[in-house]
Amino acid sequence: MPDALTVDGHRLLADLGRLAQLGAADSGGVSRVAYGDADLAARDLVRAWMRDAGLAVRVDAAGNSFGRRDGRTPSLAPILIGSHTDTVPDGGRFDGALGVLAALEVARTLRDRRIELAHPLEVVDFQNEEGGLIGSKIVAGRFDAALSLVAASGYTLGDGIRRLGGDPARLDDARRAPGSIAAYLELHIEQGRILEEANADIGVVEGLVGIQYWEVVFEGVASHAGTTPMLGRRDALLAAARFVDAVNRVVTSIPGRHVGTVGRLAVFPGGANVIPGKAVLTLELRDLDLDVVARLFERIEREGRAIANAAGTSVTFTPGLTNEPSLTDERVQRAVTRAAESLGLRPHTMPSGAGHDAQNMATICPSGMLFVPSVNGISHSPAEFTRDEDVVNGANVLLAAVLAVDADLTRG
Amino acid sequence: MPDALTVDGHRLLADLGRLAQLGAADSGGVSRVAYGDADLAARDLVRAWMRDAGLAVRVDAAGNSFGRRDGRTPSLAPILIGSHTDTVPDGGRFDGALGVLAALEVARTLRDRRIELAHPLEVVDFQNEEGGLIGSKIVAGRFDAALSLVAASGYTLGDGIRRLGGDPARLDDARRAPGSIAAYLELHIEQGRILEEANADIGVVEGLVGIQYWEVVFEGVASHAGTTPMLGRRDALLAAARFVDAVNRVVTSIPGRHVGTVGRLAVFPGGANVIPGKAVLTLELRDLDLDVVARLFERIEREGRAIANAAGTSVTFTPGLTNEPSLTDERVQRAVTRAAESLGLRPHTMPSGAGHDAQNMATICPSGMLFVPSVNGISHSPAEFTRDEDVVNGANVLLAAVLAVDADLTRG
Repeated sequence: MPDALTVDGHRLLADLGRLAQLGAADSGGVSRVAYGDADLAARDLVRAWMRDAGLAVRVDAAGNSFGRRDGRTPSLAPILIGSHTDTVPDGGRFDGALGVLAALEVARTLRDRRIELAHPLEVVDFQNEEGGLIGSKIVAGRFDAALSLVAASGYTLGDGIRRLGGDPARLDDARRAPGSIAAYLELHIEQGRILEEANADIGVVEGLVGIQYWEVVFEGVASHAGTTPMLGRRDALLAAARFVDAVNRVVTSIPGRHVGTVGRLAVFPGGANVIPGKAVLTLELRDLDLDVVARLFERIEREGRAIANAAGTSVTFTPGLTNEPSLTDERVQRAVTRAAESLGLRPHTMPSGAGHDAQNMATICPSGMLFVPSVNGISHSPAEFTRDEDVVNGANVLLAAVLAVDADLTRG
Repeated sequence: MPDALTVDGHRLLADLGRLAQLGAADSGGVSRVAYGDADLAARDLVRAWMRDAGLAVRVDAAGNSFGRRDGRTPSLAPILIGSHTDTVPDGGRFDGALGVLAALEVARTLRDRRIELAHPLEVVDFQNEEGGLIGSKIVAGRFDAALSLVAASGYTLGDGIRRLGGDPARLDDARRAPGSIAAYLELHIEQGRILEEANADIGVVEGLVGIQYWEVVFEGVASHAGTTPMLGRRDALLAAARFVDAVNRVVTSIPGRHVGTVGRLAVFPGGANVIPGKAVLTLELRDLDLDVVARLFERIEREGRAIANAAGTSVTFTPGLTNEPSLTDERVQRAVTRAAESLGLRPHTMPSGAGHDAQNMATICPSGMLFVPSVNGISHSPAEFTRDEDVVNGANVLLAAVLAVDADLTRG
């Protein structure tokens, strides 16, 4: 086979390192919480790099940054590639940033090699992915939160959007109609160990799991730990503890890739010498199929009520946010798989257990995602790491997939 | 039998109501946290009442308030009666206050009836009982905490002692040598349901349980709830939850009046979408016999290690404070029992599951405690309640027990 077209890996790695300086923390991690100063500085730098790459730059009303390159056929809708540059507090340097900089590197490579696509190409840096996929939600017309909500940086969504150069009063201007984007492709780190364990180089994402949250509250009676005999107790933490174990038991009792997590548990009043009267916890269940989630919840709820009964407490389940699952486009999946194979890399088809901007884009255009391995599956942490080789592999597969999708969609 | 000597119940109940106005909260509860303004005001009022009762009032270097009445025999050591007037935040009006005001009422009754004891009588209002029995610890020479420790009111122990009129530089002056107090008697609400269930009027405390605390930490690996399959998890909360259940199982598996409680549990990082990497909890075990506590802990520790192993986490047990159990004096117990019976009340011998100033006093003099019933066992709460009849019964038994102890100790 002829030498494949590849990106400039050194340039990409150097820029990843330079971007990581913005918001660099003593821990070795990166804090570019959406709307904070470091987030603004990183977006400024990305737009400067977009301009250097010859892209036409704009910030939409939502505060997302776009860099556009014209295509051969002016009537075609653009292919959109990118991700986000905001991070969780004390996060890593790859989550999001890799997808934006690899997309930028694809645009640079096309310019360097004087390759013109049929479609226009747009590189996007979505805003506030970590705080609820805000930027891509607005673009997809799925945003329904209050602008007065306070983000992790302390700014409201409205103030944050203004700080990014957007206009919260005109968010509808940032919407992209179904059909107005030819395809969306996003490269991201896996944030799990599935690729490592499968000994694969590239994850071909078949869909993004749905997520359903509940707040679960057990209420008993707070009383004195010294004067209340064991049999007279109505211990809310004891009930909650048995529930946490039951969640794990139910979720692992049937085969599948669904997961269930209790990530937060608070105990009241919380004195070492007081029997807990109240325990509040979060339950989240994830699967590509919300019917599976519903069946799991039915069993978990039943067990929770039996546990509460036995412990003499009450229990309430309050449904929280539901993120609908989304499937990726099969043509885009095939393009990514073939792109990986054409570069001698091993693709592995898998769901995304995490939420990504691609799930919003999938509601308005054919979308796809590709993953590169995260060492030990660690993410949202200063220890987040993806090997140089995998960074460059990811960008090369993205480039090849863009070329394939461009050709494929032009053929119709 | 002749009419028994009794206190003025109306006066006692009225004063309990007046004291409850200081630190009265909207909840209906009382907040007189040690060293705060309401605590100071309550102690001022108690000292004013002591003076009105003809007692010689002083504040010792620890900030405890004493009111003294001379006895017939100047060479005899005093009989000390009392409790404390500080409360937990949003506590009740009986815990501590009852013991101080009943002791004051005993002194008033002796004055009103012109009864002279052989021994001097001292009424005490110990400081900061709720924050670690501080006042009585200093008196018993058992205080070894740092004066820089911050109490619940926000004042350090040192500043608090100064605010009460004590002198933190001269705490040794507040020590009472073994033998320098003839006996200590404390009336308190039960704070449990043992008397209610035994249908008894007066609890005769045979001892105060020992308490041992541990901090237990489970450490696993925090990771993304969406991208980490169930089998790859090292979930610190799952391990901690199984441990909480195991504590309950071990403690209830053998008969006895010991108790075991996990009252505090904190989860890190505590995001709904993050598998907990760390869980920190408190374990406390109580019994009259620390050997029983040691045997329980041995089994709990073994279960904890097995649970951690199975969950892929570590576990550490760090011993905290140990409160030694203390037995009350048998002569004082008998005096209380007979005093109750002489008034036609039903006594019930029982351990105290809670800590009290009496446990410190028991290390330097013959000590005893008597309990009156707490409705539904509720305490440390605005709902704390003891019936008027039981309040007055308690004060009458205290009076009769003081007379009996005075006579008994005078006979030698």
